[in-house]
Amino acid sequence: MRKIPKPTIRRLAIYYRCLERLEQQGEENISSKLLAQMVHIKDSQVRKDLSYFGSFGRRGIGYNIQKLLSEIRKILGIHKSWRVVIIGAGNIGQAIARFKHMEKHNFQVIGVFDTDKRKIGKQITNNLVVSDINSLESFIVHNQAEIAVIATPAEAAQSVAERLEKAGIRGIICFAPITLDCNIPVEYVDITVFFKTLVHSVVSQTHNV
Amino acid sequence: MRKIPKPTIRRLAIYYRCLERLEQQGEENISSKLLAQMVHIKDSQVRKDLSYFGSFGRRGIGYNIQKLLSEIRKILGIHKSWRVVIIGAGNIGQAIARFKHMEKHNFQVIGVFDTDKRKIGKQITNNLVVSDINSLESFIVHNQAEIAVIATPAEAAQSVAERLEKAGIRGIICFAPITLDCNIPVEYVDITVFFKTLVHSVVSQTHNV
Repeated sequence: MRKIPKPTIRRLAIYYRCLERLEQQGEENISSKLLAQMVHIKDSQVRKDLSYFGSFGRRGIGYNIQKLLSEIRKILGIHKSWRVVIIGAGNIGQAIARFKHMEKHNFQVIGVFDTDKRKIGKQITNNLVVSDINSLESFIVHNQAEIAVIATPAEAAQSVAERLEKAGIRGIICFAPITLDCNIPVEYVDITVFFKTLVHSVVSQTHNV
Repeated sequence: MRKIPKPTIRRLAIYYRCLERLEQQGEENISSKLLAQMVHIKDSQVRKDLSYFGSFGRRGIGYNIQKLLSEIRKILGIHKSWRVVIIGAGNIGQAIARFKHMEKHNFQVIGVFDTDKRKIGKQITNNLVVSDINSLESFIVHNQAEIAVIATPAEAAQSVAERLEKAGIRGIICFAPITLDCNIPVEYVDITVFFKTLVHSVVSQTHNV
């Protein structure tokens, strides 16, 4: 498999979301130009990104949406379902556990863990109850969980990551504001980065006026 | 002000988070090489990004952390405090409202709005109660809110965006899975993009072994 740069992967995930909506609306084809407009990315960039799939876009007709969705699913690795555990049942952990889009996108949350005795046993959704973190490793092994979300305070994140890696977790989404030292892939989510990027646009727009 | 590309802005926000931690740990200077290691970005890229500030890095000593923080704050526009309203008091809206890092990063949530009569009046934090969306415009004007978070269902997002723009909001963070048609800057947050990027790394790592 050809190595695809990370910014391209991120854009593919964004195109994916847009293409899904178009499919739901009953559309069959889309031009790179229209897709580019919808996601606010240059159309030359969109064409370059889609060239990773070989050239099945057709001049004057564009790309077949279903085919494109299926190719992106394969490249991203979301053609199969992924079993997810969440560590930390605070605001963010609970919001992710309840987030309906996760399941729709083939990410199935199967366990939520915390150290706090007041949270353990709490019903999060119809199928999810907060478990004691002591049972983390055995749960991961028995249920073949593959992805973990770290939504703990920063101080706890590194030791949790080590436990996850040892138990066989293959990738981590980290909401804690630290950089983890581990040998499996990690994606860091810092919501404040979106706010900072936004206010920069706001400020520079004002400067431009 | 020189126009800075968006990926650079995003990286500056990531450096910022890292530099803040170093400052808390009592560090005074940092080399571009060490900063690059901490954030998993090439050091040539870090040096290029920091060159937007002019060259106040000193050979053999590196960058002064406090000075760099203050410069990044100015570039990003977070040297001042921003007043934020949240539309939609569901899981995500509530998680953002309760998110302590927001205030630390100069984003002050001053109002939360919903249409759902069962949610209106609900206490979210010590200072925040869910308000009726009917009072949105007058609240924004009287409290000079500048940034809005759209955490509504997709169907409601466009009309909410139009109301926000008319009321004087200057930028939007959109969690709803749609592309908004409006004239103020918007940052889109799709949590599933992080999961998709992660599983791609997981899958391609396995391929490489």
